[in-house]
Amino acid sequence: MNFSSKLLENAVAEFSKLPGVGQKTALRLVLHLLNQDKDEVERFSTAMTKLRNEILFCKVCNNISDQPICEICASHKRDRGTICIVEDTRDVMAIENTNQFNGVYHVLGGLISPMDGIGPSDLEIDSLLARINPGEVKEVIFALSATMEGDTTIFYLNKRLKDFKINISTIARGIAFGGELEYVDEITLGRSIATRVPYENSLSR
Amino acid sequence: MNFSSKLLENAVAEFSKLPGVGQKTALRLVLHLLNQDKDEVERFSTAMTKLRNEILFCKVCNNISDQPICEICASHKRDRGTICIVEDTRDVMAIENTNQFNGVYHVLGGLISPMDGIGPSDLEIDSLLARINPGEVKEVIFALSATMEGDTTIFYLNKRLKDFKINISTIARGIAFGGELEYVDEITLGRSIATRVPYENSLSR
Ligand SMILES: [Zn+2]
Ligand SMILES: [Zn+2]
Repeated sequence: MNFSSKLLENAVAEFSKLPGVGQKTALRLVLHLLNQDKDEVERFSTAMTKLRNEILFCKVCNNISDQPICEICASHKRDRGTICIVEDTRDVMAIENTNQFNGVYHVLGGLISPMDGIGPSDLEIDSLLARINPGEVKEVIFALSATMEGDTTIFYLNKRLKDFKINISTIARGIAFGGELEYVDEITLGRSIATRVPYENSLSR
Repeated sequence: MNFSSKLLENAVAEFSKLPGVGQKTALRLVLHLLNQDKDEVERFSTAMTKLRNEILFCKVCNNISDQPICEICASHKRDRGTICIVEDTRDVMAIENTNQFNGVYHVLGGLISPMDGIGPSDLEIDSLLARINPGEVKEVIFALSATMEGDTTIFYLNKRLKDFKINISTIARGIAFGGELEYVDEITLGRSIATRVPYENSLSR
């Protein structure tokens, strides 16, 4: 593309770095911003830098939070005996939306993926093992995507969790193989939590 | 959506204001930014505010520019006797890309659209009429989308330009009715400029 302005070219280049945003889309979005009031663009930009600079991750569950301890971990209404392990904050949002789960979460921040060079040490696994007090925690539920990476992560964590003598379950596979958790509809997701099965059983099927 | 952070919710809300960006897409893009280095997010945000605060519009043709007079208007290689009238900077980029046009442009900044409350006074029409010196300008080419708004704008401008005794043409309609100019492929667009017809002829067909 031949831009008539370096400022425009630069803004489009930055926008094009976002996943799934091609140069034409980036140009359309940037020109839209250019048509807004200066205050409006300032608000947009500030929202992004403020988020990046001020965001916290809950010291207990690693979920995105404005406080050192997130609302769910801080709530006395939640059952600390059940920890639901998820990939990222979108999964927490999706599960909260089902109103089927009253335990707490642990956000791994990714899935084990040798292809992408992501190993166990890149994920919040030490902090998970550290918080499991066998007296208090009774069950760990894996709510991970039904993909190769999700299964690899469950396989690895199941081994690490065996010694704790707690129940380990996975959400029921109402999800088609290859399905990304975040795109599953509420009803399917809620039901799959309600009908979760011991991990060992899920393997034998 | 139930966000675990106001900062996150706010960033997603700002991103969702962009045209064609739903809340799920906005969340995905914002979480991507959150995963980048602080410097990277700063670069992204600064590119947008800098563009909005420092951009200029060419005093001659109204195209987006970093200087008071854009490169095309400043170039001595361009034929000032032929003015191509377009809706926005994307159309200039598209036509430049065809290498079929060596004249200059006039960017209207929109099209007449009574449905959207956009009238002639909202567009760069006075500045167009002001720059037409009949001794110098020999031809005005309309390169507008083949839509109701494009046709309305041409109809209006043709009336205003009649007294100038210059040639008025439109790019050939190789473009299907309803087609947006910016999505037309290079070859079609280049050919339609090369085979442009006098506006009066285009009406009688
Ligand atoms: Zn937490
Ligand atoms: Zn210019």
